[in-house]
Amino acid sequence: MDVRLSLDEVRDLATRTLMHLGASKGNADAVADVIAAAERDECKSHGLFRLPGYSVALRNGRIDGKAVPVIADLAPAVVQADAQGGFAPLALNAGRARLAEMARSQGIAAMPLVNAYHFAALWYEVEALAELGLVAFAFVNSRSYVAPAGGTKPLFGTNPMAFGWPRKGRPPLVFDQASSASARGEIMIHKRDGKPIPEGWAIDRDGKPTTDPAAALAGAQLPFGGYKGAAIALMVELMASGLPQSHFGYEAAAEDTGDGGPAKGGELLLAMDPARFVPGGDGGAALDHAEQLFARLLGQDGTRLPSDRRYAARRRTPVEGIRIPQQLHDDILAFTK
Amino acid sequence: MDVRLSLDEVRDLATRTLMHLGASKGNADAVADVIAAAERDECKSHGLFRLPGYSVALRNGRIDGKAVPVIADLAPAVVQADAQGGFAPLALNAGRARLAEMARSQGIAAMPLVNAYHFAALWYEVEALAELGLVAFAFVNSRSYVAPAGGTKPLFGTNPMAFGWPRKGRPPLVFDQASSASARGEIMIHKRDGKPIPEGWAIDRDGKPTTDPAAALAGAQLPFGGYKGAAIALMVELMASGLPQSHFGYEAAAEDTGDGGPAKGGELLLAMDPARFVPGGDGGAALDHAEQLFARLLGQDGTRLPSDRRYAARRRTPVEGIRIPQQLHDDILAFTK
Repeated sequence: MDVRLSLDEVRDLATRTLMHLGASKGNADAVADVIAAAERDECKSHGLFRLPGYSVALRNGRIDGKAVPVIADLAPAVVQADAQGGFAPLALNAGRARLAEMARSQGIAAMPLVNAYHFAALWYEVEALAELGLVAFAFVNSRSYVAPAGGTKPLFGTNPMAFGWPRKGRPPLVFDQASSASARGEIMIHKRDGKPIPEGWAIDRDGKPTTDPAAALAGAQLPFGGYKGAAIALMVELMASGLPQSHFGYEAAAEDTGDGGPAKGGELLLAMDPARFVPGGDGGAALDHAEQLFARLLGQDGTRLPSDRRYAARRRTPVEGIRIPQQLHDDILAFTK
Repeated sequence: MDVRLSLDEVRDLATRTLMHLGASKGNADAVADVIAAAERDECKSHGLFRLPGYSVALRNGRIDGKAVPVIADLAPAVVQADAQGGFAPLALNAGRARLAEMARSQGIAAMPLVNAYHFAALWYEVEALAELGLVAFAFVNSRSYVAPAGGTKPLFGTNPMAFGWPRKGRPPLVFDQASSASARGEIMIHKRDGKPIPEGWAIDRDGKPTTDPAAALAGAQLPFGGYKGAAIALMVELMASGLPQSHFGYEAAAEDTGDGGPAKGGELLLAMDPARFVPGGDGGAALDHAEQLFARLLGQDGTRLPSDRRYAARRRTPVEGIRIPQQLHDDILAFTK
């Protein structure tokens, strides 16, 4: 049994639940916006599915729902967003304009995020920067879930990297992909639904391949693409929590209370202004040039751009609404009682 | 039959050959240094194996071996290296100090490379920046060889991305990996040696999987790791030639004269100073923190750091020398007659 909700109802449900549990309106709105955007784009594993985790961590006081982020310039092209022990989205929103301003004035700029609890879709960040006309990267890590190349025990988070490229008069080209073979949320959803996971996603506690989602969650996820994906997982760990000096995956795992809420970890955003990468400052020419590449790509049968499926969902859900399992809806409502 | 050479003999052979064909000493030395470094680290596909390609393109005048690179600030954190129609290495050497200076003063900086012909190992660039204490990325594209996700025709170059992280008192952590399932040079070496290629590397002209290296070279290479590797190939194309406004892979392919020499294409380097990513400027703490991550990784049986094999070769070859096929040696010597 599913419950059908409009996108406004999704956002309201998230905001109300978080505020009921003590979040400030600013924090609740920032988290609810990301959850609603994920449901809108049918990224179910970052939608309302995450709300119980956010809620538990608020209720037990592990995360400060009233945190007020602090934004500080560290260098002419580096601005730090300090979430002050709160959720990532409000701090990212608070720093975004300064990051964009630096990228335009310096050509490239970086925003390390610290003291944050991250649970949100990463494409949301790079899309927001690309909507401002900037090329963007985002790196975030999480608790240790993924084995390194050749190893059998969790070391890295699922460590997504997201990339955004602005397009004239269209939504940006965006990808957001875990450096694990699958998102952890996908394995959690398979477990919830009693379905086996595909081969190649995970190994069990003994390092043996498994298709049992419970054994996978207790064992280790595998990187995508073998040792190359593992190298990217390592790079994301260093970019997301090495440079910002935040928690590596194993440090976040050591602090894990098992409440199902988000982990402490770092994030790093990079933003580049195409106008500052060529003499004369015609960034529009770079975007036009890229459109020729995209046209060639789409000229081959069977291809699509990385974000196309998400944008198709975005056109559909405002009309059709979204569906979530009755049980999830009940679980969320229980937090407000 | 192999020919055994010392590393000095490798460098001399490359320098002499390139200068005989009209390269200036600066250009010849810069290319020879990268070739010798590749042989030293047993990266055979970027070693003397490439010298005939460089040589042909010099001899037929397609590439200007006397080019004098121009280095110009485009923004406070962006410096452009213009190779003026010459080989990439001299231009990259010429811009490196300015890029490092910008990274230290601004926190992060970028160097687009344009009007360059690229054929060299990419790890060389990020290692040089990491040796200066900077975290570094490099992106470079090449002629269209790789099919996009879902497609069957070449669109992207093999598009390597390299990453470097500085270490105290040790060579940097570096990886350099094609976004194709294999380097093109590896397929070329399989063809030369009459060996089949592994499954998953390529499709033939009809889009069917093949293990025949000749059919693979005539068809399309595949990205590593399925659609995720394809997304990285697209990102590298945009970073390497989109932002710098250089040649995409299909534009370089359209200009291909079939002489076996390097293609025109862009490259982009990013450099970050760890000291500017935290309040107080203690970049050393970030490096110490990363060492804890590396120790955990190496604590698992069967693991190694991405650059370890290359550094092991680097300790061995100065003593043992390097070996190249007699035929390759003969081919190189023929250019000087």
